[in-house]
Amino acid sequence: MVSAQPGDHVIVKTKKEEVEGILLPGQKEETLILKLKSGYNMGIDKKKILSVVVSKKQEKKPAVSRGDIKQNKRLPTISILHTGGTIASKVDYTSGGVIASFTAEDFLTMFPEIEAIANIRTVLIDNLMSEDMIFAHYRKIAKAIAQEIEKGVDGIIIGHGTDTLALSTAALAFMIESPPIPIILVGAQRSSDRPSTDAAINLLSAATFITSTDFAGVALCMHETMDDNTCYILPPTKSRKMHTTRRDAFKPIGANPIARVNYETKKVVMLQPAYLKRDAARKPVVREKMEEKVGILRVYPSMKREVIDTFTSNKYRGLVLEGTGLGHAPTNIPENLPNYEALKAFIASGGIIVLTSQCIFGRVNRDVYTNTRRLGDIGIIYGEDMLTETAFIKLA
Amino acid sequence: MVSAQPGDHVIVKTKKEEVEGILLPGQKEETLILKLKSGYNMGIDKKKILSVVVSKKQEKKPAVSRGDIKQNKRLPTISILHTGGTIASKVDYTSGGVIASFTAEDFLTMFPEIEAIANIRTVLIDNLMSEDMIFAHYRKIAKAIAQEIEKGVDGIIIGHGTDTLALSTAALAFMIESPPIPIILVGAQRSSDRPSTDAAINLLSAATFITSTDFAGVALCMHETMDDNTCYILPPTKSRKMHTTRRDAFKPIGANPIARVNYETKKVVMLQPAYLKRDAARKPVVREKMEEKVGILRVYPSMKREVIDTFTSNKYRGLVLEGTGLGHAPTNIPENLPNYEALKAFIASGGIIVLTSQCIFGRVNRDVYTNTRRLGDIGIIYGEDMLTETAFIKLA
Repeated sequence: MVSAQPGDHVIVKTKKEEVEGILLPGQKEETLILKLKSGYNMGIDKKKILSVVVSKKQEKKPAVSRGDIKQNKRLPTISILHTGGTIASKVDYTSGGVIASFTAEDFLTMFPEIEAIANIRTVLIDNLMSEDMIFAHYRKIAKAIAQEIEKGVDGIIIGHGTDTLALSTAALAFMIESPPIPIILVGAQRSSDRPSTDAAINLLSAATFITSTDFAGVALCMHETMDDNTCYILPPTKSRKMHTTRRDAFKPIGANPIARVNYETKKVVMLQPAYLKRDAARKPVVREKMEEKVGILRVYPSMKREVIDTFTSNKYRGLVLEGTGLGHAPTNIPENLPNYEALKAFIASGGIIVLTSQCIFGRVNRDVYTNTRRLGDIGIIYGEDMLTETAFIKLA
Repeated sequence: MVSAQPGDHVIVKTKKEEVEGILLPGQKEETLILKLKSGYNMGIDKKKILSVVVSKKQEKKPAVSRGDIKQNKRLPTISILHTGGTIASKVDYTSGGVIASFTAEDFLTMFPEIEAIANIRTVLIDNLMSEDMIFAHYRKIAKAIAQEIEKGVDGIIIGHGTDTLALSTAALAFMIESPPIPIILVGAQRSSDRPSTDAAINLLSAATFITSTDFAGVALCMHETMDDNTCYILPPTKSRKMHTTRRDAFKPIGANPIARVNYETKKVVMLQPAYLKRDAARKPVVREKMEEKVGILRVYPSMKREVIDTFTSNKYRGLVLEGTGLGHAPTNIPENLPNYEALKAFIASGGIIVLTSQCIFGRVNRDVYTNTRRLGDIGIIYGEDMLTETAFIKLA
């Protein structure tokens, strides 16, 4: 045990089994804690351990300093903005979980292949897991994008956590109108220090897409399938995270992907006939203002009006009502009429309500059912086939 | 115009086009309103109309009275409980929308084919669109099911709106434990008076499944694909409406369908190896109590603590927190800490929080990220791969 250091690969033998994993620090007195290849942690009773053998010492890659970055004049330049998330995360050895903790510079240490595709500038904007993104972060990213465009780079890649990746992509698409260059958000479902990481392929596919097409605008780049050969470039307001762990978690909803990038052959196929073309002379319109007083309310059976009223009494200005089916809410029978009254009161207080559907696929439709027409009558806006997430961001 | 009556199929000619549809009553003074084959309404400026020709008078099918129902001793008996929804709905000629308005008896007029499969008992429980279902309705349905089981029927079909069909199916699966017979909920995405209706195929497939297998328990029966040949029998707590209009809107989530029913050949293939078998002697355990003070909160960026606090101050006892990704919520950075405090306060007030994921597919996992572990530390329960809807019903 003396020679095994936290971070080392070890093989632990007990009477019953032999387990291989990375030794985590912050070990408990009676239990040895390993991070297994699967990504899970395992506690082993120290009394039952027969032997611990170091199979591989912890690797320490040399950090690349800014000075080392080659500037190849024949290659385009891509700015990599880092905001956090699994794409640049590693195991937190105090808790055993994964935390976002690399700086943007580490990107080059982790992904040296990118230097064959483009010159790289790196900007560290933030380092947080994306579930904690608030509107202030969107503004910070939008500002950084505007600065990089000003500097004349050929494209921007934004490393971002996957949890709210689709929301941030939508936000930036609304905030940065008609950018002269491609702005591609990338995430990863498995952290970069795991063998099954998808970080490199997503990142390098985004770089390939940027350097080999005339596309301009905001989009996101993630795995097309569970295999590692292709990535999709996905539309910013029509994509959604549809699985908690799969590498192909992001799906276009009611829309085609923008392009398919073959990671190995570097071949890019455009899948949408019309798109904004790159134009270095074009000045983007940047809108930074967002309304904080907006919310999302997902309806459910036996819902009570107090959950609607909280948006009214806290002076919210917008609400996305995620209804059922074609855009329905429990508002029609006597027991549910208080909800109808509460929605009316919210609108009377100056609030805007946009109706979307929990079904995710398809569109809300005012004209099919009598009940839906009643919602329209009080001024609720039908979100058509807009995703709840997009409606929320657009409203904000 | 004199001879065309509301409900008649008419062909309207203007200078520009020829439109066929059903004439709706409640016509406006200057505009003629047609319901098109597509299900949409169209207004035509009366001044521009050259001619209106009746192509088919409104069909009025004779109603079947209870006395007419054949009792074939060699056939099993199925009880059809009607709760409302599109499966037995028609156009509301006052508003032009679709309303649920048929009585259960009309089922036989609409679906005479079922008499070749089983003897039919019909019970009208309710007549409402399913978005308005509240827990009291679940209790009413559970009670009716218990009564029908008591009467010794061989199976039960429940006609139900599709909006909350999956929720009601989950509720009944929790309320009726180990029923001796199959209890199959069916819905329809297109109303029964439309040529493209899926009502008959879903209903008859359910009847075929009931009469040709030894399955017992609660499940739901809907189209497998957009074609009309097969239906799926879907698991009650692992199914979800995934499209607003498609006939194959209901998908099993992280589970196999229970069976596939070929509507034309009447062939049934069981797709789950183990299931509860039919046993006429078994007494079901019926649980009718549900907690009203439960809610669903879907998290979103820049969420404020007041939306959580409303559940605490209104003394809610349960909350499903629909998080992002693997089960995350905006609770970690200083700006989002108030949300963390609010969740803690809810739990301190005696509330239970179950965490699910907006991703729909996959499962929440406490062990991957540091942030998620923090939610576990304050006593939030991880919903594993449970759907938000199922977690909500189970909590209630």
